[in-house]
Amino acid sequence: MIQKLITNIRKTNAPIVVGLDPMMGFIPEHITKKAFAEFGETLEGAAEAVWQYNKAIVDEIYDLIPAVKPQIAMYEQFGIPGLMTFKKTVDYCKEKGLVVIGDVKRGDIGSTSAAYATAHLGKVKVGANLLTPFGEDFATVNPYLGTDGIKPFIDVCKEEKKGLFILVKTSNPSSGEFQDRIVDGKPLYELVGEKVAEWAQSCMGEDYSYIGAVVGATYPEMGKVLRKIMPKSFILVPGYGAQGGKAADLVHYFNEDGLGAIVNSSRGIIAAYKQEKYASFSAVDFAKASRQAVIDMIEDIGSALGNR
Amino acid sequence: MIQKLITNIRKTNAPIVVGLDPMMGFIPEHITKKAFAEFGETLEGAAEAVWQYNKAIVDEIYDLIPAVKPQIAMYEQFGIPGLMTFKKTVDYCKEKGLVVIGDVKRGDIGSTSAAYATAHLGKVKVGANLLTPFGEDFATVNPYLGTDGIKPFIDVCKEEKKGLFILVKTSNPSSGEFQDRIVDGKPLYELVGEKVAEWAQSCMGEDYSYIGAVVGATYPEMGKVLRKIMPKSFILVPGYGAQGGKAADLVHYFNEDGLGAIVNSSRGIIAAYKQEKYASFSAVDFAKASRQAVIDMIEDIGSALGNR
Repeated sequence: MIQKLITNIRKTNAPIVVGLDPMMGFIPEHITKKAFAEFGETLEGAAEAVWQYNKAIVDEIYDLIPAVKPQIAMYEQFGIPGLMTFKKTVDYCKEKGLVVIGDVKRGDIGSTSAAYATAHLGKVKVGANLLTPFGEDFATVNPYLGTDGIKPFIDVCKEEKKGLFILVKTSNPSSGEFQDRIVDGKPLYELVGEKVAEWAQSCMGEDYSYIGAVVGATYPEMGKVLRKIMPKSFILVPGYGAQGGKAADLVHYFNEDGLGAIVNSSRGIIAAYKQEKYASFSAVDFAKASRQAVIDMIEDIGSALGNR
Repeated sequence: MIQKLITNIRKTNAPIVVGLDPMMGFIPEHITKKAFAEFGETLEGAAEAVWQYNKAIVDEIYDLIPAVKPQIAMYEQFGIPGLMTFKKTVDYCKEKGLVVIGDVKRGDIGSTSAAYATAHLGKVKVGANLLTPFGEDFATVNPYLGTDGIKPFIDVCKEEKKGLFILVKTSNPSSGEFQDRIVDGKPLYELVGEKVAEWAQSCMGEDYSYIGAVVGATYPEMGKVLRKIMPKSFILVPGYGAQGGKAADLVHYFNEDGLGAIVNSSRGIIAAYKQEKYASFSAVDFAKASRQAVIDMIEDIGSALGNR
């Protein structure tokens, strides 16, 4: 799957991923109104609104981008109907040729981690059948529980040719509380990065491993160091745009080959029509505003990479 | 909700929780056969088998125990139908008067953590309605992202009178890889424990906080230390039985009042009929074997607490 991600990035010339993290406040009224008219102000109604919103955006931008990253929490908050929309979104994006990164941040131990890995990247055995529960291409995972938590995910990745992005240094202000603490003379996130590099080594595609890392755009100096620690891993970079990360800061997340990183933007793209910059687009044209925002983001990152 | 947990523990005189972590291999053939006959060898068929298995066990043991802890990964692996069984199990156990700890180990930042908190402990606003997505009483959460990840959960807990168990020291062999690393002269898990104590202070019930911690039964010396660091927090203790934790080791997880800890057993209870010890129960009587295993566990922990 790492090869497909690389192929898609080369084809689109866009090392970016769009976070499909819908919040009710983002969805234009004409969509919610229609969904509520059909399903009521229910979890089903909310889930239908989210689905129509996602679909319109994906239809408008899929040809420009290599990948999407649906954040499962935003679907889980609408219970079962929300998760049905998550699954529908995953399937639809895969049909459109996109790589789907399930931003699920799961992590547990042993058979429980194996069950999560099965849920999101694998197939589950029921009687004589092998069935696909959610079927994303990549999943994000949390390393706090150590190798016991990661190994079952890696096993499924090897079998299914899927991939991981392991949280190393997250983009939020308080990420340093534990991640930056000094252990044996270096911060914990470096230690986690070294483990990722070790795991990555055992899961190589052609030039890159299918075990990657999450490193926030908001900590570019740390990104520079982590790039070197994990040379074979793709870095998934949240925090661009809304959270304050700038394109110029991100060039060091990439390798010399122009690969090795994929920069995420969520609300900056999917709720672009709410920004002053895209005020010329009406709420009805929200997906067209998203398309323009994608074009602008590709240009922004492309020119920063060109200037380095 | 912490008061309800304490009331239930006092009523049953059983500081234990049963982990409803069903695996297909645990479910007796007469149940899977019937479920597959009705729904086929499908995700729906598997979910139905899990539901019938859970229901039979809960019906047999609910009067003996204060709480259950369904592990969502085991349901998520059967996709949407699996999660429907998770929700049905949560609802059914609440109807039976049990406290439900959603073992979801979620954790993210800001609005995403808020969405997870809403999904599992809160209510979501859809139009003019406030709806309950999954509705557990407690959730387990992962602290790797720091305060930004925990705060949104705490906010929902305050509003809804729900509670958390935050991962501090997990029961697995490799948990030390990151959790035991020395930071400023003490292990990281102690640092996390200190944070839990701080968060707990702001969320007090009567004698205990509704912010608790997870500390594995397999590290009793660390449990002893963490008990003192987090005096107002309940400790959820996985790792008893199958993972090797012994009752005598667990007495120091409790406070002098006999409260402050709740010991989990999963497969030791729900798959008791597969153990040599309970070989007198046939597969058809699997739930009766579970009842006996609960009685034995209460006796084991009770006598260890009596002997201290």
